Amino acid sequence: MAQNRSTIDREVDNGFDSIDHAASDEEHNKTSHNGSNSMNKLRLREDEISVERVFQHLLVPSWKNQLTVRAFVVSFFLSVLFSFIVMKLNLTTGIIPSLNVSAGLLGFFFVKTWTKFLEKSNILKQPFTRQENTVIQTCVVASSGIAFSGGFGSYLFGMSERIARSSSDTGDFKDPKLGWIIAFLFVVSFLGLFSVVPLRKIMVIDFKLTYPSGTATALLINSFHTPQGAKLAKKQVKELGKFFSLSFLWGFFQWFYTASDSCGFQAFPSLGLKAYQNRFYFDFSAIYIGVGMICPYIINISVLIGGILSWGLMWPLIENKEGHWYKKGLGQSSLLGIQGYRVFIAIAMILGDGLYNFCKVLSHTFFGLYKQFRTKQGENVLPVADQDSLSPPPQLSYDDQRRTQLFLKDQIPNWVAIGGYISIAAISTATLPHIFHQLKWYYILVIYLIAPTLAFCNAYGCGLTDWSLASTYGKLAIFTIGAWAGASHGGVLASLAACGVMMNIVATASDLMQDFKTGYLTLASPRAMFVSQVIGTSMGCVISPCVFWIFYKAFPDLGTTGSEYPAPYAIVYRNMAILGVEGFSHLPKNCLLLCYILFGAAIVINLIKDLLGKRGRFIPLPMAMAIPFYLGPYFAIDMCVGSLILFVWEKINKVKADAYGPAVASGLICGDGIWSLPASILALAGVKPPICMKFLSRATNDRVDAFLGN
Amino acid sequence: MAQNRSTIDREVDNGFDSIDHAASDEEHNKTSHNGSNSMNKLRLREDEISVERVFQHLLVPSWKNQLTVRAFVVSFFLSVLFSFIVMKLNLTTGIIPSLNVSAGLLGFFFVKTWTKFLEKSNILKQPFTRQENTVIQTCVVASSGIAFSGGFGSYLFGMSERIARSSSDTGDFKDPKLGWIIAFLFVVSFLGLFSVVPLRKIMVIDFKLTYPSGTATALLINSFHTPQGAKLAKKQVKELGKFFSLSFLWGFFQWFYTASDSCGFQAFPSLGLKAYQNRFYFDFSAIYIGVGMICPYIINISVLIGGILSWGLMWPLIENKEGHWYKKGLGQSSLLGIQGYRVFIAIAMILGDGLYNFCKVLSHTFFGLYKQFRTKQGENVLPVADQDSLSPPPQLSYDDQRRTQLFLKDQIPNWVAIGGYISIAAISTATLPHIFHQLKWYYILVIYLIAPTLAFCNAYGCGLTDWSLASTYGKLAIFTIGAWAGASHGGVLASLAACGVMMNIVATASDLMQDFKTGYLTLASPRAMFVSQVIGTSMGCVISPCVFWIFYKAFPDLGTTGSEYPAPYAIVYRNMAILGVEGFSHLPKNCLLLCYILFGAAIVINLIKDLLGKRGRFIPLPMAMAIPFYLGPYFAIDMCVGSLILFVWEKINKVKADAYGPAVASGLICGDGIWSLPASILALAGVKPPICMKFLSRATNDRVDAFLGN
Repeated sequence: MAQNRSTIDREVDNGFDSIDHAASDEEHNKTSHNGSNSMNKLRLREDEISVERVFQHLLVPSWKNQLTVRAFVVSFFLSVLFSFIVMKLNLTTGIIPSLNVSAGLLGFFFVKTWTKFLEKSNILKQPFTRQENTVIQTCVVASSGIAFSGGFGSYLFGMSERIARSSSDTGDFKDPKLGWIIAFLFVVSFLGLFSVVPLRKIMVIDFKLTYPSGTATALLINSFHTPQGAKLAKKQVKELGKFFSLSFLWGFFQWFYTASDSCGFQAFPSLGLKAYQNRFYFDFSAIYIGVGMICPYIINISVLIGGILSWGLMWPLIENKEGHWYKKGLGQSSLLGIQGYRVFIAIAMILGDGLYNFCKVLSHTFFGLYKQFRTKQGENVLPVADQDSLSPPPQLSYDDQRRTQLFLKDQIPNWVAIGGYISIAAISTATLPHIFHQLKWYYILVIYLIAPTLAFCNAYGCGLTDWSLASTYGKLAIFTIGAWAGASHGGVLASLAACGVMMNIVATASDLMQDFKTGYLTLASPRAMFVSQVIGTSMGCVISPCVFWIFYKAFPDLGTTGSEYPAPYAIVYRNMAILGVEGFSHLPKNCLLLCYILFGAAIVINLIKDLLGKRGRFIPLPMAMAIPFYLGPYFAIDMCVGSLILFVWEKINKVKADAYGPAVASGLICGDGIWSLPASILALAGVKPPICMKFLSRATNDRVDAFLGN
Repeated sequence: MAQNRSTIDREVDNGFDSIDHAASDEEHNKTSHNGSNSMNKLRLREDEISVERVFQHLLVPSWKNQLTVRAFVVSFFLSVLFSFIVMKLNLTTGIIPSLNVSAGLLGFFFVKTWTKFLEKSNILKQPFTRQENTVIQTCVVASSGIAFSGGFGSYLFGMSERIARSSSDTGDFKDPKLGWIIAFLFVVSFLGLFSVVPLRKIMVIDFKLTYPSGTATALLINSFHTPQGAKLAKKQVKELGKFFSLSFLWGFFQWFYTASDSCGFQAFPSLGLKAYQNRFYFDFSAIYIGVGMICPYIINISVLIGGILSWGLMWPLIENKEGHWYKKGLGQSSLLGIQGYRVFIAIAMILGDGLYNFCKVLSHTFFGLYKQFRTKQGENVLPVADQDSLSPPPQLSYDDQRRTQLFLKDQIPNWVAIGGYISIAAISTATLPHIFHQLKWYYILVIYLIAPTLAFCNAYGCGLTDWSLASTYGKLAIFTIGAWAGASHGGVLASLAACGVMMNIVATASDLMQDFKTGYLTLASPRAMFVSQVIGTSMGCVISPCVFWIFYKAFPDLGTTGSEYPAPYAIVYRNMAILGVEGFSHLPKNCLLLCYILFGAAIVINLIKDLLGKRGRFIPLPMAMAIPFYLGPYFAIDMCVGSLILFVWEKINKVKADAYGPAVASGLICGDGIWSLPASILALAGVKPPICMKFLSRATNDRVDAFLGN
């Protein structure tokens, strides 16, 4: 029975006209929302006490002194760490939890250890401040953000020949090469930064946007730098370290038993062979147990419900129609057969959820802007563009006064922002058509004209709801540019490249604004934040492609369904691009109908969820439900195990679970994630695991024993 | 590589003249020593406060009221439970830890729950007393003791055809049948009881022997019946229950993956394939992790050292001599080849250790008797035979006074004891030759004439050192009766049967005396204890054969090396009997020399250990070292994992580890042990596990994949 896995997993081999679409980004943001939940548990009660009075005896260093060499050295190493983790998550399921807690915690730990060491040697020149901590966190988030928005698990890898062969349009592809990827990232990743920099005062001070993740990170950093916070942080780091080691060693141990694809713990039919054939099994992955512990219960339950609905109910029912709805004998991997239903129904549900939330966040954005505008006209407190006003309005609290004062001290002139944007856009417009000859310069120009507006919308929406809709804007680019270019002019590649350009701008814009909010709350200079973002982005433009390159070279079956790294969203993005260019032809019977039903269901479920208000929290999220439609529910089981652990822990000792839960989860995620580094090095060096742990049915086992006995 | 296991494990197929000998009994008693260590941790500080003053307001029930129906109902169920556990341990490695803690704890728990329930319903007639608790514990120990002294893993199963075929003397065998086993046990198991009953006052009151296990059990029971003790016991039972369930479920989970012998977690090459071939692996057995937690560190370390010395060093070196020291191509299982070295060197070491300790305990016994005799002559406190003296000497503490008073209240007349012994001996002498026609009536008569002396020696030695040398006396019987009967008159079977007769008498004698000590310390009536022992022994005589029968019928490969239940001591005992009858001929080259060296080494190590005194506690025990010589060190790794868990736990929280360690260990042992009940039922019903978890080397895996691909 062990061969089942391989069969199941090489399912996207027959090409077909297809819609392809991504959930990973939305998921990314959903889960970063969760991250903030976890971090909220860690924070000091900021509402009740004045944080800045606690810190008032401490001098805030000048913006140049906030940018220390040690901060960037630590950032570099953490960037590599987190790039590996994000890349592994990208290439396995595309579900990426918020790693801000870990970044903040580890940054604090390393610099604190370093400064303590120097202090003991009496050669410490500059004490470790929370501003420096913020700089590190910003740099790491910017850098590892590229590992996600670079599209290594989605649009960029979707261009490759390997993925093209699993889709219906095999003619047009562009294989990843280190050179062009780095060049591409450098010309598109900085635009987002420049496009929203002039708006930071409006967003942070005038609009007082929440930015839940950014606020949570700031509270975390503030708490670390109080004495009792430092003590707790030390204990948390200890927990993190313990579970990091455990998770790393577990990854190492598992490696020995994975001589080939159908071997090892990831092929363990822990719920039986029949369930395993329908991808219901616990795959012993520490990283997804950790992800499950960070994600809120409702996401994990949604994923599990989605898995049960699809792999437990819909797919077996549709498979019964084999011969009626689709031709017999196509196997598991043909898009004309059962695989077609899986992919397109998942895409329909993701699109339905995406559309609903796009409308929702956009209406929030406009409604918010409208309110801001009316308030300002009525009260006339501060002119929107007045960035030189150093006197905060008198009704502000001490904290707000001090924060506003420092936030407005170091300016980034508007001409730098506008000049930067225009010159980079010019370079980009000139360069990109050389990288992708399908992407005409006028497509790029149009994107760059619209982008700042969309970047603003996304940064604003994210400030209100903590949801970055970067992937939705990317999909918008896929469909519009795809339709514009058309099939004959290499529309598939053009639209994927356009998606990359759009996503990078929009994602960076919201990330930067989150960081400005963090900086505002920790008294870090905006200028320091901006420089840190630039440096972090530059690091990311080099580190992420290199990390991807290691995976790409080390695992030759990267992107093949059923392998260790199926990169599920690469094929989803490519199929979306093909759909945008070619339309719905060739879908198997009733597939389109089912797609419409589930598209509608996604919208209705969201609507009910919102209408029910607080009671709606028990309604599953359609986006989370759609992910296992294509991949199978195995990782949902891992995540639910993580949930269960946290749940039991909270029942036993809520205080401890709240204080150490995120640290334990981060440890599990980091340990397993960083294990991919030695694992890829071993694979590159040609060292193969020595043992295969195989699972055979009793009958097959008897045959094998007879064979081996001869 | 998965076939390695089967090869390794079917090694005793070629017969050979062989010495066979048992360590399990000594081990049994060594580890019961440990049991008392663990229990000591649980006790109230008896030395500092007067226990009986705490209990003085409570009425001690009459001896008839101590024997309640509910006590024997609970005893019956616990007897079945522990018989399964002891049987499983017998048939896997022969290492049996003390289960007194679990028996005391579970007995308390069940009766307490029952009485609480009745109390709430207002129909409770008699409250639950510690005397009743002692009665249960005594009954369960007596009953499950038969599972060990009945020789199902040693002499009795050694008579079977299956074991005979693995030895060199295949002519003479007697296959187990339920009928004759029960008859045999009934006629031999009660003699031990009657032989030492008249001596109980001498041993317990006059000689004040310690009986560490008995004392520890009594302290445990006393502690349960104080209010704070009952609270702790409740928590301990909770822990026990938790780990019982975990261990049971783990056994159940493992079952699914064990479609054939080389499958499942017990074939997991957790330290690599090379190490697995030399039987170095962790086999995920909860029962031996629990055993490791109960056994003192030095036993676990000794077993590991023995395993490393033999399977890591000696056997590989001897295997290099293949072709020189023994013929090439004999395989792993021939007693003429490498297997011969394994079996005979293990036997030599066991015999060396046994001889040393026999001499040591015997000299202690005689020295102790001599001292008692001199003291008595000098002080003339109490005449040895004066059993009617109800007035304790005035210098005794309150506790001692009260205990002595109650211990002497209910008498068992000497004529009952002597009459009982003589009549049972007569029945036995008449019956046994009908069961084993090789065992002449005069052999039996001689045994029964000597037995009471040996029983007294063993009970006295056990009181001093907590070591019961039952198996050594059994071996004595094997060699003397074997030599007397000779090969031509079925000496092998005669000597094995004689071993059984001797062991049953001697083992029961020391167990009974331990229980009298427990009864003395808990104010239980000796008459109640005696009745409880008789009832418990009767239960055991029926339960144990039935449990063995279930195993025997459910697992057709019981007793085959390499199977789940290799019953290692069955072959060892049979080979010892053959050696007693036939001598050392046919041993492979240098084997006898190595045997002499390790026989001497065992004595020397023991001598050094004793001479070093307290510092000698770091010297390993030769008996424990010898067990893995034959079996391989895999269970040593389990046990060391148990040790490690306990060690780390003690480092983190010593108080908790001391309070709950024994409960957790008991839970692990009971859960896995009782899993053998459903496992055997499934096997009897012909339900086979559906999956095989197989471990193949990469090369073999490629061949298998190619084979299955066709």
